[in-house]
Order: sequence, then structure tokens, then C-alpha cells
Amino acid sequence: MKPAQAQRQQPATARDGLTPRAQDYAQWYLDVIRRGELAEHSVVRGCMVIRPHGYAIWERMQRELDDRFKATGHVNAYFPLFIPLSYLAKEEQHAAGFAKECAVVTHHRLKSKDGKVVVDPESELEEPLIVRPTSETVIWAQYKNWIQSYRDLPLLINQWANVVRWEMRTRLFLRTAEFLWQEGHTAHATEAEALEETRRMLEVYADFSENVMAVPVIKGRKTPGERFAGAVDTQCIEGMMQDGKALQMGTSHYLGQNFSKSADVKFLNKEGKLEYVYATSWGVSTRLVGALIMTHSDDSGLVLPPRLAPVQVVIVPIHKTEEERAKTVEEGRRVAEELKAKGISVRLDDREGIMPGAKYYEWEAKGVPLRVEVGPKDLEKGSLCLVRRFVAEKPGETPEEARKRRKTFLPRAEALAGIAPALSLMQSELLERARALLASRTRVIDSLEDFERFFKDEGGGFAWVHWAGGAAEEDEMSKRFETTVRCIPFPDQIPEAARGAGACILTGRPSTQRVLMAKAY
Amino acid sequence: MKPAQAQRQQPATARDGLTPRAQDYAQWYLDVIRRGELAEHSVVRGCMVIRPHGYAIWERMQRELDDRFKATGHVNAYFPLFIPLSYLAKEEQHAAGFAKECAVVTHHRLKSKDGKVVVDPESELEEPLIVRPTSETVIWAQYKNWIQSYRDLPLLINQWANVVRWEMRTRLFLRTAEFLWQEGHTAHATEAEALEETRRMLEVYADFSENVMAVPVIKGRKTPGERFAGAVDTQCIEGMMQDGKALQMGTSHYLGQNFSKSADVKFLNKEGKLEYVYATSWGVSTRLVGALIMTHSDDSGLVLPPRLAPVQVVIVPIHKTEEERAKTVEEGRRVAEELKAKGISVRLDDREGIMPGAKYYEWEAKGVPLRVEVGPKDLEKGSLCLVRRFVAEKPGETPEEARKRRKTFLPRAEALAGIAPALSLMQSELLERARALLASRTRVIDSLEDFERFFKDEGGGFAWVHWAGGAAEEDEMSKRFETTVRCIPFPDQIPEAARGAGACILTGRPSTQRVLMAKAY
Repeated sequence: MKPAQAQRQQPATARDGLTPRAQDYAQWYLDVIRRGELAEHSVVRGCMVIRPHGYAIWERMQRELDDRFKATGHVNAYFPLFIPLSYLAKEEQHAAGFAKECAVVTHHRLKSKDGKVVVDPESELEEPLIVRPTSETVIWAQYKNWIQSYRDLPLLINQWANVVRWEMRTRLFLRTAEFLWQEGHTAHATEAEALEETRRMLEVYADFSENVMAVPVIKGRKTPGERFAGAVDTQCIEGMMQDGKALQMGTSHYLGQNFSKSADVKFLNKEGKLEYVYATSWGVSTRLVGALIMTHSDDSGLVLPPRLAPVQVVIVPIHKTEEERAKTVEEGRRVAEELKAKGISVRLDDREGIMPGAKYYEWEAKGVPLRVEVGPKDLEKGSLCLVRRFVAEKPGETPEEARKRRKTFLPRAEALAGIAPALSLMQSELLERARALLASRTRVIDSLEDFERFFKDEGGGFAWVHWAGGAAEEDEMSKRFETTVRCIPFPDQIPEAARGAGACILTGRPSTQRVLMAKAY
Repeated sequence: MKPAQAQRQQPATARDGLTPRAQDYAQWYLDVIRRGELAEHSVVRGCMVIRPHGYAIWERMQRELDDRFKATGHVNAYFPLFIPLSYLAKEEQHAAGFAKECAVVTHHRLKSKDGKVVVDPESELEEPLIVRPTSETVIWAQYKNWIQSYRDLPLLINQWANVVRWEMRTRLFLRTAEFLWQEGHTAHATEAEALEETRRMLEVYADFSENVMAVPVIKGRKTPGERFAGAVDTQCIEGMMQDGKALQMGTSHYLGQNFSKSADVKFLNKEGKLEYVYATSWGVSTRLVGALIMTHSDDSGLVLPPRLAPVQVVIVPIHKTEEERAKTVEEGRRVAEELKAKGISVRLDDREGIMPGAKYYEWEAKGVPLRVEVGPKDLEKGSLCLVRRFVAEKPGETPEEARKRRKTFLPRAEALAGIAPALSLMQSELLERARALLASRTRVIDSLEDFERFFKDEGGGFAWVHWAGGAAEEDEMSKRFETTVRCIPFPDQIPEAARGAGACILTGRPSTQRVLMAKAY
């Protein structure tokens, strides 16, 4: 240890151990997760461990979403982890979509044999159980007990749960065999009400994404081929990651009467007639943590919007002597108390034996929005040093200039008063930056040549194209360009310059409006 | 519908559809759950559905517990649902205890065959996966990556999760194949620290139980035969249900180095030597909802301590004419707003077409602590009618007299100001009532004859007895009286009259202190 380094110093090159985005985006993503201590692979193939820092972000997402679900009249409940095979197979389309790569429970007992623990062959289940990939079938089996008349409707229930879809190729947060999510399952007396609910929850997701995650999204509906298995209509929000690829961030499905018919759930309507119930389901998952990372983070690691940061401000005391240590830690404690009183989430990092530079590096990699440095000189002057995790780019600025702008020395009172507004500003700057990226990588494209150039030579992004193809044509685009129809956007989502009718980019057939095409995760 | 009944009326006999406790306690328990809409059996054998009202109670428990875990320095994380068979079998004692009735995943794919969905035999896993019955083995496999030196300790992690233990005989909340719980898993540099943690978390559970659930508990440790498989010491809290039976409400285990050795987790201590880590684990589950029901509820259904009541106050407008309806609902809304502003959880029940009596009945069965009735006369007088879910018993009082005492008419301002104190009083009255029950069914017993009389003729309860038996003698007591050693209490838990040394009730061998014996769930 070299105590001289304990002086205020430039942070250690924050890129240490982090692959730059420009060099290898996929590796950068994994590096950000590793350095940010967000998650890692477990000993169980395809399953991830969400580490405390990653889980704390998910908890904040849950709280924000749950508040919104409750504000729109929903309640939480819990349904079983297991689905009997015959139930999963009840709804035809659903079975075709989900009865594939599943975890199948076939036995219920282990036993010792020759000193080893083995599956007891005599414990085979009469009917295999599937670990839920989604819960429509098992939930609608229960709704049958709860719904008799229109008075029991609407039934607005959400569940926070783990689900399993056996995936061969996994990617932390984005695609894992087990993941955490919420699934809303609602029952309504009329189609109009169910359609309204489908859209309402999509708007809740979009609001959360833009205003809490600071990730702008395009709202629309999926083509028939991309629909949820068993849905009449699947609506979605699509975000753009920094590599220009789309990420589906949430879906809201209008299920019509498909599940109420397969589970035989009828209600007595106001006219006294028996009718099948109308249904919706909607969900978002820990995939959102992946979206958050890929939207905002940089070559120094994780960047978090202040509204989701488990620690919004970290305070690092800087000292050489024991006397300085006592004083700066004491001041750090006072600053922490004052910020906590304002509802700001603070961490005083007074760990001994770790250089300040290493602390800066660690907290930057964990995405803490603001750092307060408290050194002996600051104490003398009655000032504080504030360092922002990022600043909004200025055109023509060098990285070194931007780095300098991150740091400000302010009189103590002014510094403390400015922290909440600074966090709020950073929240909106992140959204602006993400909007600017989205705009800069969005094209209105009218020919396959331009389309090919955009995706093969110019890095790609979101393409607004006229489209009149079916499943076969979608396949063709996917094979030729690795692009898919991300959504048929709601009309107000289409930029001015892309509105109106035209001709399908592939078939030339007439098209009434453009769709959003992109490569996707 | 008879509008005349809409006048303020005695609640419908609240016992309708509820078996009285005195008649059949087990059926009463199920009836309270059904009428309170707390939970029900699912289509999956042994798995329960936690209905919204039951889940809302669990959410409140979670919030209270989670706050306490975080206040004691813990963070949350998430580990995989599945455990490879070989991992479960790693710790010898643990394997013997848990590698029995488990859900075993053996395949990962389904396929269509002759129009039916079947398990694809070609998708058999190389190694079966166990759905976690508890997570020590999989968590310690991960801790190996996170612990290198004493600087990485203590590691204080909790997980909220579902677990599965295949149970043949299930009882809602108390014993189900799948249940929800939290499991804390901590790693420490010294035995002393780990022992301190074990006890700290038991105290957190005891504090939660008494001050939030209003359930008094006895704290102590399990006998070797009742220890958690793989633990060096299992500490527990035991509550008494209204039928005199004990319910283990939470456990905290000191695991020594058993799991760090089987997972090979060593750390470099301050002296620079490699040493195995010391561990604890601790958990409570949705079983606590069962404990809550069985401790406080009565022959009218669920009774909830106000600190866990999802709805603390329900407001029921009473009216005959449309004009009265408009006015009483409007007043109900104002009352609701004023109570919400005080942080009280309120529900205005302005549902149409349901008689007030039916509403009273429903909310009583759901355990809402306070009801505010708003009728036209109350509006005229500027008063409100408050009805408490229960009142503390007075000796010699008839049920009718007690019922009258539940209801008070007060001037509006006085009524509103009195609601928070009334909730607070009810919280402490429930604890007092439970303490009185516990005291009244507790005996200091010195002979097997008295023991037999207590458990066979007098209904049983908690027996303080001297004990020096081993596993075989515990078995004998269990066979003869259905009683078990609930715990070897911490010395301060033993009532004055039961302190000191004596002779074992069964063997006559010397005993240094009494233990707690009871029948148990």
C-alpha cells in the first residue's frame, strides 16, 4: 500500500478489466455485469444467480411496478409452481407454443443405493408436472372457482414469481432457463373492457420504462407469427440498446375467450345469460435489468438512472493521518445523515485499507450516480467535492474535458442543496441521451438496397418500412438480414416523416402504414 | 332483496358457514381460511393457491421482516430453483435429512405424439435436478466464488423464494408441498460471530412474532433429533395455538463449518492462514399465516392484528333512498380520505346490491379490525358508528354484552381521532389475550401421571418438565402422548416456578433445567 496514493487522485483508469463497447459489445455486457457484481452463472446449467447489487435494482423495479399495478386496481396472489401436463396441453395454441423446452418433474423421491443418492424409480408420478413457463392454464383452472357472475368481474390479479423455460443458449438477464417476473392475469365481462385493460397495462409498462428506467420505447402490436401462444393480440414495448438492436421489454396480451373456453369459465352476465369470460395477461421480467445495463452503461461500467439506484450517493472520505481520518469520516457521517433526511439513498464508504481510487472505481462500476469526496482541504474550506457518474455529452468535447466537467467543488450548503436536483437532472439526461441514440439510429427506409446497407454496412438500428408480408416473408427477411418485425406500431408512435401508405419493402404490395423492423435480442 | 334490511342491523349471525372451534378445531381452521378467502387447494396435489387477501397479509409480513433484515445489515439476492442431485448429496447429514421427498426434474422437453403431448424420452437430463427444499448446498457452491479473505466476511445474504418438499398429508399454510419463505445464509470469520448471528436472527423473529403478529413465543434450541439436517445447533421460536398445540414459527441454525467444508469454502484469516468459513441459516415461511389464523381468529372468522391487516378500517354506507346513498357514500369518501391521510389503510365498501349485513359479515370473516358505519342518522347528528372486530373479554360477561361493547357511537371528530389509538389498543389486546391463553394452558409437571392427565384429559398445552432422555426416550413420549420436546429453552424463557434442577420425568435421571413439551403441528 502506498499511502501517498490516498490523496485525491484521478480514479484508476476505469476501463481496467472492462472490454470497450466498440471492441466487443457482447463481452462488454458481460464485463459490466461482472464488475458491477450484478449476476453470474450458477452451478445449474442455464440458471443465473442474481447477486445483491443486481437484486437491489430488481427490488426497486418491483416496488415501482407493484405500486403502479395497485394504483390501477390490481392485487397480488400466488399460484403453484407446477402445472400438470394435461393442463398445459389444454389450450391448443398455447400448448403448441409452450409445451416444448420445459423442466419436467417425473419423480418425487430420492433414496440411498450403494452409498449414493439416486432417484427412487418407485416414486414416479402418475402425471408429469411441468415447472411453469407461464401460468395461464393453472390460473384459469382456479378462476373457474372464483367466477360465477358479472359481480365477480373484473378479476384483476398479478403474481410475482419464478418461471422456467429450458434455454440452450443463455445470456445473463436477457435469456436464462429460470427467471423472475410478474404475470398479470385478468378476467372481464366484455371484450371492450379486456381490450382496455390490455392497453392500460402496456401504458403502465411504457410509463415505467421511460420515466423510471429512462428507456424510451416504441409501442405496438406483434405480427401473428410473433404473438403469445394462445393470444388474440399481443402488444409490446420495444427499446433500442446501444448496439442498435431491439429488445422486447414487456408484453400485454388480449387472450379473448381462448383460456376461459379451455378452462370452461363462464359467468352469468347482466342479462342472466351464461357467457365465457374475456381475458388478458401481461408480464415483465428480470430481462429489464439487462435492458437497463445495455441502454445506459459505458466503458467504465454500469450507469444507473437515479430512480433505480440502490445507492444514489456514495461518500468517500480521503485522509492520510489518523486525525484526518477521524475528521473526514465524521464529516462523511454528517453529510450522510443530512442526505438521508432528504430521502436520498446514501452509502458512506469508510472501509479501511482500500485506497480512495479503488473505491471510486468500484462505485463507478456499480453505477452510483453521485460521489461526494470529503478531504482535509474540503473540511478547511467548508466545501465538498461532487463527482457525477456521467455528464451529458457536449459536441466536440474531448473525454478529458467531459471528465473534468463531472467534478465540481462547492460550498457545503450549496453542494448538499444541489444533490436532489442533480439526481433529477441526471435521470432526465439519461432519457434524453437514450432518445438521441434512438433517433440517430432510426431510418425511414423504402428500398431493400437501403435496408441492406443500413443493417449490413451502417450498423443498423430501427427501420421504419412498409410491410405487407406474411409469415413466409418475415422468415425471408430474418434469413437475409437477421431482422424481424418488432411491432406494428400504434399510429401515434410513427414519426411524422414515416406516416402514410406505401408499398411493402419486400413484396411491393400496398401497405397502409409502416412497421418497425430491427435486429433483436 | 328486501330494502328494509338495508337499515342498520345486527350483523347476520357471523357463525353461518363456520364450524365453531369447540366443535371441530381442524374444520374451523379450514372454514376460517375459506370464508376469509385466504387460500385454497390447487389442481396440483399438495400445492396451495394463496388468494389475494391471504397474499396481502403475507406481503405485510414480508415488508416487516425485510425491513428488520436490512436494519441488521442483510441484503437480498436470488439463487437457482434447481439443485443438481450431486450437490444436494454433498453434505452428509444434510443429504440424509433432505434427500427424501423431493420434486425431481428428469427431462427438459415435451413433444407431440399421436396428437397428445408427452415427455420426450430423448430429453433426459444427464444429472437429475431437485427443486430446492432449502438452498444451503447451491448457495455455498456460489459463496466459494465470493469469499477469499476475511475482508469478504461477514457475508449477510437473504433470499425470498419458493421451496418444495413433497408432502403427502398437507394442511393449508401449515404444511404444503410448495411454500413461500425467506432463507438467510450468512458466512463469518469466527464461530463467535456466527453464533451471535444465529441468536440475533432468532431475536428478530421473536420480536416480529410478538410485536407484529401479536403471538407470544418461547425461545430455545432443538434437541439433537429435531435439529436441521447439517446444523450444529438449531434455535427456534414456538408459539401456542388456541387448541393448546405448539407451532414452530421460525428457526435459526448455527451450521458450524459443515457446509463450508462440503463446498470447500476457505478464507485467508487476519493471520494469513486458510480457514473454513463459519455459517448460519435461518428462515420463516407462509406457515406464519397459519400461526396468525390459529392464534387470534374466532367463531366469526379471521381476526387480524392491525399491524398486519391489509384493510385496517372498512367504511360501510347505509341507505334506503338514492339521496341517502349519495350522501352517505360522499361522507364515507371523506372519512376514508381523512383516515388515509393519517396513514391508516382504509376501504370504502360502496358496492351496490349487497346488504350492509352481508358486508359486515364478509369483512368480519376477513378480519378487518374496525368498521365505520355511516347512516343517514349519523349524518344528521354529525356522529359515526364504530364497530370493533373484537373486544378484550371481561370476566362473567355474556357474548351479547361483549357484542354491544364492540359498538360505539361518537361525535365525528372524536371518532376519527380515536381510530389510530383504537387500532393500537387492539394490537396490544391481541398479544395480551394470546399471552393469557398461553399462561392458562401451561403447567409445571413433575410426574408422568400428571403429564398424562394434562394431555389426555385436560386438553393439553405447554408442559415444563425435567428431561434427560435421548432420541429413544423422545420417541417413547411421542408414541405414548403424541408430545415432543419443542425446545430446550434459553434460561430466561423458563417461568420462575419452573426453574432449577430436578429429575427427568421419564427416566428419573438428573436434569439441570426443564424443557418445553407439547403436542405440535
